Amino acid sequence: MKVVKTISEVRESISAQKKMGKSIGLVPSMGFLHEGHGSLMDAARKESDFVVVSIFVNPTQFGENEDYSVYPRDLEKDIVFCEAHGVDLIFAPEVEEMYSNPKISVKVVEISEILCGKTRPIHFAGVCTVVSKLFNIVTPDYAYFGQKDAQQFYILQKMVKDLNFGVQLRRCPIVREKDGLAKSSRNVYLSPKERIHALSLSKAIFAAQKKVKVGMTTAPILAEMKEIIRSTPNTKIDYIEAVDLDTLKETTIIGKNTLFAMAVYVGKTRLIDNFILEEA
Amino acid sequence: MKVVKTISEVRESISAQKKMGKSIGLVPSMGFLHEGHGSLMDAARKESDFVVVSIFVNPTQFGENEDYSVYPRDLEKDIVFCEAHGVDLIFAPEVEEMYSNPKISVKVVEISEILCGKTRPIHFAGVCTVVSKLFNIVTPDYAYFGQKDAQQFYILQKMVKDLNFGVQLRRCPIVREKDGLAKSSRNVYLSPKERIHALSLSKAIFAAQKKVKVGMTTAPILAEMKEIIRSTPNTKIDYIEAVDLDTLKETTIIGKNTLFAMAVYVGKTRLIDNFILEEA
Repeated sequence: MKVVKTISEVRESISAQKKMGKSIGLVPSMGFLHEGHGSLMDAARKESDFVVVSIFVNPTQFGENEDYSVYPRDLEKDIVFCEAHGVDLIFAPEVEEMYSNPKISVKVVEISEILCGKTRPIHFAGVCTVVSKLFNIVTPDYAYFGQKDAQQFYILQKMVKDLNFGVQLRRCPIVREKDGLAKSSRNVYLSPKERIHALSLSKAIFAAQKKVKVGMTTAPILAEMKEIIRSTPNTKIDYIEAVDLDTLKETTIIGKNTLFAMAVYVGKTRLIDNFILEEA
Repeated sequence: MKVVKTISEVRESISAQKKMGKSIGLVPSMGFLHEGHGSLMDAARKESDFVVVSIFVNPTQFGENEDYSVYPRDLEKDIVFCEAHGVDLIFAPEVEEMYSNPKISVKVVEISEILCGKTRPIHFAGVCTVVSKLFNIVTPDYAYFGQKDAQQFYILQKMVKDLNFGVQLRRCPIVREKDGLAKSSRNVYLSPKERIHALSLSKAIFAAQKKVKVGMTTAPILAEMKEIIRSTPNTKIDYIEAVDLDTLKETTIIGKNTLFAMAVYVGKTRLIDNFILEEA
């Protein structure tokens, strides 16, 4: 496994692989890797000849009052983790390598203004910009993203269509702790008490999963989810919504493609979780 | 030579060429081809194994009051023209093939708000978006653009850097009619009288070219250029400016990299012309 910091080193590696006719799989990440990322690497390893993991805490997807400066970082540990998952190349650039007085970026309208976009208005433009850059640098055949960031996946899928990237996106299931909490690099922010309160998210997800059926209205399900959160101390609902997976538009009747998605503050930490009916 | 209308047909052709290790050259165009485009094709033919010309009047780069609907089109003639210039593949999509309820596009700040951007505020975002799409569809090694659209070239060059496209851009010199008028598909809009008045642009360019020297101030040169236009009936200056080619910022002292650029209405037709000192 190679670890490189510059775009030109990535291009060199990829070009050599492509000349041998190898397929390229990309797992974009912000590092501080956990088994959620691990499952993406495993999926990449299975499908692609050459697996690239990018590790880059992308400043353009953080709002001014968000956690960019304190976002957890541990490159040494991440390198060991990637090695164990059979990764071929880690791309871990500095900010200066990725952004140099930029004037041109990727813009998202409408689908970036709902769900997580309501409280994070610049987030998805930043994600689309950095992922576009990574797609152009790595030129992957396949790119792997977690279902936990459901809206992100939907928007990136739309970006691939709208900008005609020649890459196939793969959506991999949420990986959870034994007690149900969705794995996230941000879980490290939680105090021991908050860690317990954070279980209310997955509890709400599991409770909903048990009851949902095609044709039902979403209202009682959403009410129960909200009740589970509200009855937990130290939580504040950002949103809990049921939307159509193909449009991200709110839906009142449950269909096969209904996505139940939530963002909840536990103390100061904003956590997300979701499920899709077809996979419930 | 093949003429195709779908993205999947382009991908298929390109993929076959890449498997044979061939390099790809792209000439993006809006059709109604003239010898300016011809010179781009010739440059591509010389340098690239496989030459692709796209012919697409891109609606997203036209403002509401601009000439999208009347922009001249003649695909049959363009096909003959491309054949004569040794082109391998023409990609001539319909609008529906390129845009399907788009939510994601390319955004440009600052460098899109000056020069031509002042009167055409959405133009360069539209250009960057369609060129990004073409880059992703054709995945060229080289792409060829005319010096006549100097600001466009500068912005696309910045886009390649900011979004890390793996393509090298080539800037090809302005091609002129025998009497000096810069070749443009829009010249067809000119009445016989306007065609004569339109010569004021190249006259101003030639007059300036004779006088410019490194270290001089730009003011007297710009004044003379403006005077040549103003003394011509039926003309209205949009802008005549001297800028630094590396930043597009206004410059008052002439350097090697100074770009003299102008946009002038002749009747209702907006024409552009320019020159760079190093090439004067």
